[in-house]
Amino acid sequence: MSNDRPLFFQVMQYADRADGDVINMVSGSPDWEPPAALREGLVEYAGGKPETFQYQPSEGLTKLRAEIADRRGVDLEQVVVTNGGAEANYLAMAAALERSRGSEVLLTDPVYPYYPQKAEILGGVPEYVATDADGSLDPAQVRDAATQETAAIVVTTPNNPSGAVYDEATMRELVAIAEDVDAILVSDEVYDHFDYSGTFASALAVDSEHRIVTNSFSKSLAITGFRVGYAVVPDALVDPVKTRHMLVNVAGSRPAQYAVLQALQGTETEYYRENRERMHARIEAFTDGLERAGAEYTIPDGGFYVLARFPDFPGTLANVEQLIDDTGVAGMPGEAFGSARDEWLRFALLSPRVEEAADRLAEYF
Amino acid sequence: MSNDRPLFFQVMQYADRADGDVINMVSGSPDWEPPAALREGLVEYAGGKPETFQYQPSEGLTKLRAEIADRRGVDLEQVVVTNGGAEANYLAMAAALERSRGSEVLLTDPVYPYYPQKAEILGGVPEYVATDADGSLDPAQVRDAATQETAAIVVTTPNNPSGAVYDEATMRELVAIAEDVDAILVSDEVYDHFDYSGTFASALAVDSEHRIVTNSFSKSLAITGFRVGYAVVPDALVDPVKTRHMLVNVAGSRPAQYAVLQALQGTETEYYRENRERMHARIEAFTDGLERAGAEYTIPDGGFYVLARFPDFPGTLANVEQLIDDTGVAGMPGEAFGSARDEWLRFALLSPRVEEAADRLAEYF
Repeated sequence: MSNDRPLFFQVMQYADRADGDVINMVSGSPDWEPPAALREGLVEYAGGKPETFQYQPSEGLTKLRAEIADRRGVDLEQVVVTNGGAEANYLAMAAALERSRGSEVLLTDPVYPYYPQKAEILGGVPEYVATDADGSLDPAQVRDAATQETAAIVVTTPNNPSGAVYDEATMRELVAIAEDVDAILVSDEVYDHFDYSGTFASALAVDSEHRIVTNSFSKSLAITGFRVGYAVVPDALVDPVKTRHMLVNVAGSRPAQYAVLQALQGTETEYYRENRERMHARIEAFTDGLERAGAEYTIPDGGFYVLARFPDFPGTLANVEQLIDDTGVAGMPGEAFGSARDEWLRFALLSPRVEEAADRLAEYF
Repeated sequence: MSNDRPLFFQVMQYADRADGDVINMVSGSPDWEPPAALREGLVEYAGGKPETFQYQPSEGLTKLRAEIADRRGVDLEQVVVTNGGAEANYLAMAAALERSRGSEVLLTDPVYPYYPQKAEILGGVPEYVATDADGSLDPAQVRDAATQETAAIVVTTPNNPSGAVYDEATMRELVAIAEDVDAILVSDEVYDHFDYSGTFASALAVDSEHRIVTNSFSKSLAITGFRVGYAVVPDALVDPVKTRHMLVNVAGSRPAQYAVLQALQGTETEYYRENRERMHARIEAFTDGLERAGAEYTIPDGGFYVLARFPDFPGTLANVEQLIDDTGVAGMPGEAFGSARDEWLRFALLSPRVEEAADRLAEYF
């Protein structure tokens, strides 16, 4: 239930070393083009005056923060630009735990594997709330689990790995629970541009001093290597978030932030729509193949991932490696994501060859 | 003794808002050109394939790590590329404290203002060792202060703000003390390219499991905004350092790391020599002016900063603001750097107008 990094790397390494042609469905990196305006922004940045190569404000380029604040309908002062969504989540959990209103961090099962360890290095104690078979989260279960010891409730929507998308009623209730037990809801919405259900609702829809929303441009602009994310933080937590950000990182990387700003301003909605529709089409193609393979599978409402369960083939590292050897299809063991999906495998649909992968699986099983 | 961020910003803001022409000697950002190869590297990066915009290894681009390992004469595996020197110091202190061999973090007075708070957010307790009047550090004082409760000994050489450069005998003794009390020496060497004394010795000169060296390219390549630094970590601490780096940041920013790699490979030693000689000439010009002003002052052996004490003019924020109003010269209050220099002001010589600044000070005092 803790660190999937070794597991993730073990799978990646195994796939790299395998003989034959492997279709990589392990990592969450988009395989499509970043926006042209992003490339142009980097080139423009490279020609700037020497002072533009120096420290920017710790909380991020002011124009980028303003662009984010404008798009999200929040105050500029509430936006802190971070070194990717990872740092945003780290800062959010830290701010929640530093309030000294308990040390428990409520997570869902299945869980994004970095959350538990992030909580632990901050002195937090992870606790898990089960989700329904289809991945949806029943807020009543969260309410049952939340106590005065709860510092944070951390959710991902659209969800990795389940593909669940939480609707507005769910988000409202999650914020209400955080308010009732004096905790902070941390809503990680990094897949928000990949909602196929039309029901996605950001926690920003609910005005509250008890919620932090984290996000990044890694997925929406296809730049996981740039490390540009952000947190939207209630007024009372802006100072602690900024202080820790400054102490740990001073700031994010300026060329990356500049390029993201240019990309936001110079990219049509068409770009986002195309990427979303491509993913949606891949989901259909892949799950069609899983149907032929006789597998149980999820049809995600959002995000990049499909979970599949094959008969007598639990989601262990050994089975993942066997699948690479026998079919050349590399997924992630479900056991990396908690106990709820340890019978399953996770496939990231970030390859143009998902249909071929499904065919291979159908033939194999 | 804690956070200088508000103080630093108060001064910057005050200088920005002041009427008239202010010579900014507050921030540590180089005012000269980054290498041409760095700009070219960014442009080259901007034209890369989509996969080069995605996740790189958490510990940094392998070619960049190899270049650093080669230059520093250490194993590739010991090099972790970080989000600037700031993150490297954070990770180093965390690794020292996580060994559970005590919770004290020995710092020098004067101190770089971020160290105490960095220690504190990690559960460390800062303790201070006095330095001599000329800024030099007597290792015997460190030995007196080090106990079984000491987790880390953190030094900066060349020093900010004192300008002291520790020689090889000092570094050897500091490592020996760390070994004797089972602590970790953290040697922050971010100004290593700016040694005017010829006596600088990296802690890497001493092979030991008890020292971490941190550095960054912010000063040597004039790119404080890029956030590319590194830690050289003994074998036993590589895993904890990598794990925390991954949990907090996943990785540093790839375009910045790529550009730094190109800059390292494509920049002649002439570039570094010119920058060092320019700084050295500024120190002479500025201290000549301080002499005429009747001030006491340091002549730094390394780094960017000169400390000055004027008669009946202690290093308070109020006096710094008065100096901005009356002379248009902006420095930092010495009280930001601990108790040892609270009668002094710090001037960063990162302006082509240091001679003019000195003239203004000479005229005023």
